[in-house]
Amino acid sequence: MKSLNIGIIGLGNVGTGLIRCLANNRKIIMSKSDREISVAAICAKNKNKKREIDIENLKWVQDPYDITDDKEIDLVVELIGGEENPAKSIVEKSLLNKKHVVTANKALIAKHGHYLALLAEEQNVCLNFEAAVAGAIPIIKAIKESLSGNAISKVYGVINGTCNYILTQMEKENKEYTEVFKKAQQLGFVEKDPELDVGGIDTAHKISILASCAFGTRINFENVLINGIQNISLVDIKNADSMGYKIKLMALALRSDDGIIQEVEPCLVPKDNIFGKLEGGTNLVMVEGDFSDRTYYMGPGAGSCPTASAVVADIIDIANGKKSSVFGINANLLKLPINKKKDFPASFYLRFLLIDEPGTLAQLSSILGKYKISINRMNQLEHIGETAPILIVTHPTTKNLLYPAIDEISQLNICKNEPVIIKIEEF
Amino acid sequence: MKSLNIGIIGLGNVGTGLIRCLANNRKIIMSKSDREISVAAICAKNKNKKREIDIENLKWVQDPYDITDDKEIDLVVELIGGEENPAKSIVEKSLLNKKHVVTANKALIAKHGHYLALLAEEQNVCLNFEAAVAGAIPIIKAIKESLSGNAISKVYGVINGTCNYILTQMEKENKEYTEVFKKAQQLGFVEKDPELDVGGIDTAHKISILASCAFGTRINFENVLINGIQNISLVDIKNADSMGYKIKLMALALRSDDGIIQEVEPCLVPKDNIFGKLEGGTNLVMVEGDFSDRTYYMGPGAGSCPTASAVVADIIDIANGKKSSVFGINANLLKLPINKKKDFPASFYLRFLLIDEPGTLAQLSSILGKYKISINRMNQLEHIGETAPILIVTHPTTKNLLYPAIDEISQLNICKNEPVIIKIEEF
Repeated sequence: MKSLNIGIIGLGNVGTGLIRCLANNRKIIMSKSDREISVAAICAKNKNKKREIDIENLKWVQDPYDITDDKEIDLVVELIGGEENPAKSIVEKSLLNKKHVVTANKALIAKHGHYLALLAEEQNVCLNFEAAVAGAIPIIKAIKESLSGNAISKVYGVINGTCNYILTQMEKENKEYTEVFKKAQQLGFVEKDPELDVGGIDTAHKISILASCAFGTRINFENVLINGIQNISLVDIKNADSMGYKIKLMALALRSDDGIIQEVEPCLVPKDNIFGKLEGGTNLVMVEGDFSDRTYYMGPGAGSCPTASAVVADIIDIANGKKSSVFGINANLLKLPINKKKDFPASFYLRFLLIDEPGTLAQLSSILGKYKISINRMNQLEHIGETAPILIVTHPTTKNLLYPAIDEISQLNICKNEPVIIKIEEF
Repeated sequence: MKSLNIGIIGLGNVGTGLIRCLANNRKIIMSKSDREISVAAICAKNKNKKREIDIENLKWVQDPYDITDDKEIDLVVELIGGEENPAKSIVEKSLLNKKHVVTANKALIAKHGHYLALLAEEQNVCLNFEAAVAGAIPIIKAIKESLSGNAISKVYGVINGTCNYILTQMEKENKEYTEVFKKAQQLGFVEKDPELDVGGIDTAHKISILASCAFGTRINFENVLINGIQNISLVDIKNADSMGYKIKLMALALRSDDGIIQEVEPCLVPKDNIFGKLEGGTNLVMVEGDFSDRTYYMGPGAGSCPTASAVVADIIDIANGKKSSVFGINANLLKLPINKKKDFPASFYLRFLLIDEPGTLAQLSSILGKYKISINRMNQLEHIGETAPILIVTHPTTKNLLYPAIDEISQLNICKNEPVIIKIEEF
């Protein structure tokens, strides 16, 4: 059979990993593919950038649209990233020219996934993005194919290695966020726009993709509630630890009869739980189906080689003629999800820095009581100057009750700072 | 498109789970399939057996070969189990009649998988068996498809829930093997032939399947080294615990340039490792690829619903026209693996019950020394009657050295019982 000619656009970390994988494991890949996979052209911003691979024998193209328009190319691998052009127009053009597309671009899929899926399915070509979520972990395929007989109710994940690295290091090195963040930046662990990582946006891109595949709903990044890790203090990590918890940036997608919830937020998770034990850059995703029960997927969530592993799998699937709907079901049938109004009940960790005056604690607790928020444990820590740090763990309540209560407390001017609110996920 | 007509043979735990899943999640399954999936006929030994599902509206067939020969049936689901007839001839007949086959039968695949794969590929139909290994966990697809760009060097698994349950309970309830085994049997956790579970054979079936998919070698169950859990004593579990380990029945498949190793044996694994923390019936598989690094897959390894989840996924793949080589590469190209002669080095836990006479310990240690086995730690425990229990942890050595040494020690008649040898897997 004619070889599958691929054009690779973008030769950063993942692109060079891809070329290395195709070369190093050529024999293995050939044994798994019905068609030979051949790199017909490559393209990146700068040909002369120092790279760890030899690109001398590959056809270099300066204009990416020479690849998207090349009649000899069957499949375009988009590895430049970013939710807008040129990534978007490269994928668009490729699909319009009836070329298959493989991408690792979570921002693009989160923002324009539905439009691109419609286009791909109309053109009868594949749009695969296993590498967009959780690196080497085959979570997209697991949800789309392996759990396809299930009504999926929950997807939980720790899917941003940078945030997990920072939170782990804060605890290990006994340092505040800012210091550890700077070190992570120096080590090259943080995206150019740090907000993407520590602001939770990257995690939100990914969970919106997983939610769509899991629930059969149209991708809906706009409605992901996003909280980053920038406001997590060392004192909260220590308090959490003393109560048997770790703080993790959790991505949560939940479905019930009245709608879905998509959230990215730091949570207290039991420290002996598999999520609590997750350290550094490792990713972990749990999927709960009505027949499968809870299955877990863990591994390296980023990096040149692991991400390349996922890209190659997507390419081999296409070489083998495996076609599937982009999000698991026909894109025409994907409906915008209803956003569940009432949150699921959970306990919360609250930290207040109360002004040290008589009656402030009474005021605080009476407002909590007014909103029917009952207190499971409370601890007044050592004074900091003129303020009394108060630690509260609530019994299960909902954000619908808690947030207005905290607002009301804030208006009283009895707190020295913005109260800290962290959800407790008990699993 | 014409519906995909399936015939289900075997209505035990998995068969009833399958019928329930197809009915309960009919809408979801339809949305994921290009063709409607329709149960054309069912068959089992006894129509009148009490079942949790209503089979009144399904076409009952008394002779399974009426299903394998039915021209209207496109796919046969074999769920009766066992490595020989009728399971074998049912699968054989179905493939010969150009019907796709989905099965959960690990014994059949381990023993006749290569022959059946050749037949399926010759007939241009699918033979899918995701449910044969690790229940709901999509480990077959992960290895065959998601890691297809990798040279895989290791597959480690805890893939028999019964054994893991027994080992967990021995420790929790402070009871010897025999007592816990009996209880597990009463609870219905043990196969009719207990040797399959506790003797490690079921685990061996599964690891031989995973090894074939991972290494691209012909299935080779005959060369799996098998040790069960029947000889594990509570004292070994306690000793292991005091040194920071748990005992798990590990399935190991390793590949290096000079061959492969397939082993099933109880191992000491660090107790804070993910394998060490695994309790009860949960399964866990780790796969190490050269690009993916280590990815982990965890979930319910057995049971009606989880196994049905895997069977349904296999059926939906076929409904969607997804075809792949049975073991990941064309069955004609699968070569019998070379069995690596020299074991990989590991440390070992040894327990001797020495006769309490002067010089016995010197004799023992001199033989170990002769075989270049050096001792990392040694502990003489409290006397039991006239014997002295000796606990030794070796520095890394190989079985090629250790086994002859233990043989020589046994011949000296200085031990009251067969020495206990347990490998330590540090990961």
